Amino acid sequence: VTARLRSLGEDRWIARLARRLGTSAPPPPDGIGDDAARLRPRAGRDLAWTTDVLVEDVHFRRRWAPPRLLGRKGLAVNLSDLAAVGAVPRAFLLTLAAPPETPVAWLDELAAGLAEAARRAGVACAGGDTTASPGPIQIGIAAAGDLPRGRMLTRRGCRPGDGLWLSGPLGGAAAGLRLLEAGRPGRSGAAAAAVRALLDPRPPLALGPWLARRRLARAAIDLSDGLATDLARLCAASGVGAVLEAQAIPVHAAVRRLAPALGVEPRELALAGGEDYELLFAVPPRREAELRYLPRRLHIRPVRIGEVTTEGLRVRDEDGRERPLRPRGFRHFGERW
Amino acid sequence: VTARLRSLGEDRWIARLARRLGTSAPPPPDGIGDDAARLRPRAGRDLAWTTDVLVEDVHFRRRWAPPRLLGRKGLAVNLSDLAAVGAVPRAFLLTLAAPPETPVAWLDELAAGLAEAARRAGVACAGGDTTASPGPIQIGIAAAGDLPRGRMLTRRGCRPGDGLWLSGPLGGAAAGLRLLEAGRPGRSGAAAAAVRALLDPRPPLALGPWLARRRLARAAIDLSDGLATDLARLCAASGVGAVLEAQAIPVHAAVRRLAPALGVEPRELALAGGEDYELLFAVPPRREAELRYLPRRLHIRPVRIGEVTTEGLRVRDEDGRERPLRPRGFRHFGERW
Repeated sequence: VTARLRSLGEDRWIARLARRLGTSAPPPPDGIGDDAARLRPRAGRDLAWTTDVLVEDVHFRRRWAPPRLLGRKGLAVNLSDLAAVGAVPRAFLLTLAAPPETPVAWLDELAAGLAEAARRAGVACAGGDTTASPGPIQIGIAAAGDLPRGRMLTRRGCRPGDGLWLSGPLGGAAAGLRLLEAGRPGRSGAAAAAVRALLDPRPPLALGPWLARRRLARAAIDLSDGLATDLARLCAASGVGAVLEAQAIPVHAAVRRLAPALGVEPRELALAGGEDYELLFAVPPRREAELRYLPRRLHIRPVRIGEVTTEGLRVRDEDGRERPLRPRGFRHFGERW
Repeated sequence: VTARLRSLGEDRWIARLARRLGTSAPPPPDGIGDDAARLRPRAGRDLAWTTDVLVEDVHFRRRWAPPRLLGRKGLAVNLSDLAAVGAVPRAFLLTLAAPPETPVAWLDELAAGLAEAARRAGVACAGGDTTASPGPIQIGIAAAGDLPRGRMLTRRGCRPGDGLWLSGPLGGAAAGLRLLEAGRPGRSGAAAAAVRALLDPRPPLALGPWLARRRLARAAIDLSDGLATDLARLCAASGVGAVLEAQAIPVHAAVRRLAPALGVEPRELALAGGEDYELLFAVPPRREAELRYLPRRLHIRPVRIGEVTTEGLRVRDEDGRERPLRPRGFRHFGERW
């Protein structure tokens, strides 16, 4: 007999969650177990906070998303937002809504995944809210982090002439989604890598704080809805334009191999595909050389993909021809603001 | 033709929300419009944060909950949690999930209600996450406030001998829910008052911060799941017991008038009914007299309803007989932790 949330009851659900999430968490007032949790930044530091939700059948399907990976991803996408403003993640609140017939084992795996991602990032669960729901499973996270006072990165600082840099390759998650939605993920290494990019993203969390600490980036955004869409947001917030060098945009290795079977153009998927959670940031030209001081142990190799201009969004091809970059992206997903 | 969320699209939905919520909000980095928002407490103050979600057909039904009141309530229940730990609310993040066929007018009213409650409490929307959902509407809030450093109230400080105080009358919301669920709210003043208690709660937000500032309460909890259930939580967290004076428990005036028609015992509804969002707190005996200094302009008159003991949960009747207080409450609702 499969144990269901209905038979567990909410008090035992909370206790179960707290046991799985709370092993490394501080006791109240900072941790789980009160009406609200304390959030005390160290002296001289600002706090940053954000929220992001994963909804079943919008952001994931239970038939292809293992709950442990969902737990990791639910936290990862929030920590990515914190990193994008330069903050080091510290704590999170969890809002979990699930139908009464949800298997307890599924929820346990979800909690295990959250706990794994929390341990890896050094963040603690500070509380949350659980509720039965007649609808899809929803995994909501609010996360907070801190950074040196006054150093928060926003989307608004780009200036014409700044170099546009990207933390890693794009299109992998979009390729993985196409494979899973088509019901034929296959067993090739490329397919597995693409599916992993979608289900188990590892945002470059150390990069944003490093850039903020050195005041090296003028603005940044994490790529959740695709390069074209998120670049347009960055430029709109800054009141500028941009030109991308098509051949400089790094395409996920799996995408190149899967493209023929998927019937897509690799670079198009890299421009339009969402959920890569790489960091896009602008660096003043006279400081771009400093990016080489990024510690090797972080395993992040940003590449220059274009330049901030006064207006318009364009892509320059190998042969020097420019064409307009139209916003496109994965609109089946929700959006952050 | 009714405009639907589907035809609005998410970018315009966000812009619409931001316009309605952002009128009094600060620009980024503190307000709407970036990956994460800044949260900077004033010097010498701690921050508190909490999260709470309203789910359609669990916490409300669209057929009886006007969206404007839902917006107010969604924020109010979170601010109540902040007040329960002594924090003055400052800002919130909104997570909104709604089916594509949701009428835009309904969402506009929801935003208007959120904005009203935000203005009244002096809090700003700092951002959020919107998503289409195949399931019920979900209104998720994460809220943050601040308070003097080291003064946070928890559930864990009760000591035997402390007086147990309550900020206001109970049972109104539970009576309102019974009326609405039975489909016969009626038009009497009592019925309207009970329904208002459920749909438009006004937690005593000034009380917790006042108690924390003076270090007058040893512990506190806001009553979301009913006095019996939440008292049990307060006592469990403190490792103590309690005895309530049955005749001292204030019952909402509407409950007394509606009880015969509802077929309930008024005091039973006051003990078991949830969602009153009154504050229950423990005060050391030698300091109870100081409660008279609570400013009259706050319109809060706490009453003493019992006492902390070493163990067990009991109710003392008018004739002095004690009976065990069994946890009971409104378990169709979710729970916070």
